[in-house]
Amino acid sequence: MNYSIIAYIIGWILNFEALFMALPCITAIFYHEHSGWAFFLSAMFCLLIGIPLVQKKTKNKIFYTREGCVTVALSWIILSIMGALPFLIGGVISNPIDAVFETVSGFTTTGASILLDVESLPKCMLMWRSFTHWIGGMGVLVFILCLLPLTGGDGGYHVNLMKAESPGPSVSKLVPQVQSTAKILYSIYLTLTVIEFVLLLFGKMSVFDALTTSFGTAGTGGFGIKNDSIAGYSPYIQYVVTIFMILFGINFSAYFLLLSKKLRQAIHMEEVRWYLIIIFASIVFISFNARAMFSTLEETIRHVSFQVASVITTTGFATTDFDLWPEFSRTILVILMFIGACAGSTGGGIKVSRFILLIKTMKKELHTYLHPRSVRKIQLDGKVVEHNVLRSTNVYMIAYILIFVASVLLISLDNFDLTTNFTAVSATLNNIGPGLELVGPTQNFSLFSNGSKLILIFDMLAGRLELFPLLLLFVRDSWRRF
Amino acid sequence: MNYSIIAYIIGWILNFEALFMALPCITAIFYHEHSGWAFFLSAMFCLLIGIPLVQKKTKNKIFYTREGCVTVALSWIILSIMGALPFLIGGVISNPIDAVFETVSGFTTTGASILLDVESLPKCMLMWRSFTHWIGGMGVLVFILCLLPLTGGDGGYHVNLMKAESPGPSVSKLVPQVQSTAKILYSIYLTLTVIEFVLLLFGKMSVFDALTTSFGTAGTGGFGIKNDSIAGYSPYIQYVVTIFMILFGINFSAYFLLLSKKLRQAIHMEEVRWYLIIIFASIVFISFNARAMFSTLEETIRHVSFQVASVITTTGFATTDFDLWPEFSRTILVILMFIGACAGSTGGGIKVSRFILLIKTMKKELHTYLHPRSVRKIQLDGKVVEHNVLRSTNVYMIAYILIFVASVLLISLDNFDLTTNFTAVSATLNNIGPGLELVGPTQNFSLFSNGSKLILIFDMLAGRLELFPLLLLFVRDSWRRF
Repeated sequence: MNYSIIAYIIGWILNFEALFMALPCITAIFYHEHSGWAFFLSAMFCLLIGIPLVQKKTKNKIFYTREGCVTVALSWIILSIMGALPFLIGGVISNPIDAVFETVSGFTTTGASILLDVESLPKCMLMWRSFTHWIGGMGVLVFILCLLPLTGGDGGYHVNLMKAESPGPSVSKLVPQVQSTAKILYSIYLTLTVIEFVLLLFGKMSVFDALTTSFGTAGTGGFGIKNDSIAGYSPYIQYVVTIFMILFGINFSAYFLLLSKKLRQAIHMEEVRWYLIIIFASIVFISFNARAMFSTLEETIRHVSFQVASVITTTGFATTDFDLWPEFSRTILVILMFIGACAGSTGGGIKVSRFILLIKTMKKELHTYLHPRSVRKIQLDGKVVEHNVLRSTNVYMIAYILIFVASVLLISLDNFDLTTNFTAVSATLNNIGPGLELVGPTQNFSLFSNGSKLILIFDMLAGRLELFPLLLLFVRDSWRRF
Repeated sequence: MNYSIIAYIIGWILNFEALFMALPCITAIFYHEHSGWAFFLSAMFCLLIGIPLVQKKTKNKIFYTREGCVTVALSWIILSIMGALPFLIGGVISNPIDAVFETVSGFTTTGASILLDVESLPKCMLMWRSFTHWIGGMGVLVFILCLLPLTGGDGGYHVNLMKAESPGPSVSKLVPQVQSTAKILYSIYLTLTVIEFVLLLFGKMSVFDALTTSFGTAGTGGFGIKNDSIAGYSPYIQYVVTIFMILFGINFSAYFLLLSKKLRQAIHMEEVRWYLIIIFASIVFISFNARAMFSTLEETIRHVSFQVASVITTTGFATTDFDLWPEFSRTILVILMFIGACAGSTGGGIKVSRFILLIKTMKKELHTYLHPRSVRKIQLDGKVVEHNVLRSTNVYMIAYILIFVASVLLISLDNFDLTTNFTAVSATLNNIGPGLELVGPTQNFSLFSNGSKLILIFDMLAGRLELFPLLLLFVRDSWRRF
């Protein structure tokens, strides 16, 4: 294990976190809020540790997947702990575990909250909550590495870090250089966010509301600034948010292909096609099943499409309490929770492309029963899928199930009902936010014990970092100096 | 597809089913029950179709896995439909789907019932219900093939049928000849059943009660002859049933090794060791968690070990309503439902050996992250596990999850709560019997609509036949004449 390079990167993480805290500081100055000091103090504290760490240049530049994974996991943990400080210093949250839960929920773009009344929070705190979504959406580590003139350059650790931090089964480099790929992705991210922000302003939203809502949508996070989430806003705004949730759940490679005028390739992306088909089918089925809940067709379609988009992209905004819907609709939403968005988007969940690969694997097995000597290979987007990708998809599913089951078992010690426990774990491991029953869209996670909250914090981080980087922290071999 | 050999085998299945119906006939004569006629008529009907089918000798002896799977699936479906006739003719069950549900539940050793009051049933009907468990426990097809002087002999279709019908990831031949292996397994099955029967008689059970209870335990089925299952019997009998449920959940190869005096090999079977460790750990945790439900330590251990054994072996007998236990205990039981018994036993579920392989696969992946160039192979019982077995375990899990999710979604149309639907599917797909909430141990499955019952019938068959044989029925290619 190359400890010196890990310390160096974590130092930069802390410096950048201090920089990020400037936004809530400015918000506090603008609204004359006293709690702005909490951010100033926290930022200073980050710099106090961060600056010394980046002074020591590392000599040993060997950086394997092992180091990549551990660095990513540690960065996110440290980012979350430091990001929780303002809540504690500002006196908004008194229990440190609650503060870390809220911050992890922010950075991992989960959007599960332990706060009962968000409207009573100072605006700078709300801004920080929403901003953590935006920072976490695309992952901060790759962002930092793009800006830093780090030695090693291409290939080396950029790919390893990107592998560990990007959502989805495989990182497809859009252009040969990893840093250029990352820059293109961040530009798309920024541009889409700005477009949503402007469209929300057109809907007569205040700048503050439009900015926080855009952050929450872009990161597919889901922290609202109102107790009733998006329910109080106009239908126009609800439609805009619906469309942008869906857009941020699409594999960003599709936008790159569109920008490069490779229209045909973009249309032929199987994952995007299935993602849109699933959304459309879910809206149709739920609209029919839950039609008695609404008075007009427009209202039905608006609420249903909003909730479907919110759940499949794992955003977690709500315009209505879907926990009151009939069981068939609720079950579809639970299934969407697991499917999640496209790989290479800001969304969570298991990812549409993994499901495509799983279903193709099963079809192939049935085919082998009938034609034992057939050597048909599994294809995606017309290309043969490498054995490594298939294996890691299978292993991902195994790890996913084991973490899921262990989490449900451990939080069941709090003695809530199975649906609450089951959907609480699926809401955190899939980075959604709300679940059903006691953690339904109008409820929150404050009822759990501290022990259960720690489990759910682990689940949020594991879900965001695709399980393995976090699991590696628990393997003794990871810490050995080679 | 070789249709003539399939018809020939199904003919024999029907003839044997007629033979099996002699037992309830004798029961009816003994107790002077009028409904014995239902069995006589059903048996005649079986022979009416069966005898002509076996007259035509098949010329084409080519019999691939494809035919093996389809034959197994069709045999079980036909066995269930014909086995449901006595319930309908005898007027015990009026809805044909209910009658098939009950019979499938019997043959697949599930033990889920749609009957509200079993004590009102004639004794011959109760005998048939329990006897179906015993027939289904070891699978009837392999049994018939052992007795029949079929051409083709070894290798050929015996292995393919055994593969399709035996529970677990792989069939290990104990001795070179498949037929001899099968004969050894059936002898062990018969001997253990007789021993349990005698021990129950010692506990002052009547011959009828002891026989039906032994059938239910041996097949890990779970149909009781009392409304309160095993709760009304003495502690001695409850202990005997507990021990025999655990014994029937052990891989029968272990008994064969013991009989061959290969004690060391038997002790080193990883699956059996983990199976017993899981049982022990579950009893300890639940006893502690649910201690407030019982008055004495003996009572706690007796009820907890009974329920744990009943659920992990997927038997489904009950001595107490575990649905009232605290959530942690209930969650452990739900997890045990999925783990299931050992491969090569009469129990259902995903099987302990599959979980061992899945956990080893995950460990290997973590190892690969740390040592990318390592080529460590996965081992079980000291032997390298073949790639094919690992692949089929992964594919099994994928198919399992997809069937599970689809079933929960479809039965949610009945608008019961998520826990009911979730545990109803897990109780049928894992061949257990009772679930939680509305399908808890003191409830039953009669509340579901006919559509949902058909889904659950499919799940019971899919669970018993390890998914793929049944899925193949839905692939058009399976029916093509090659």
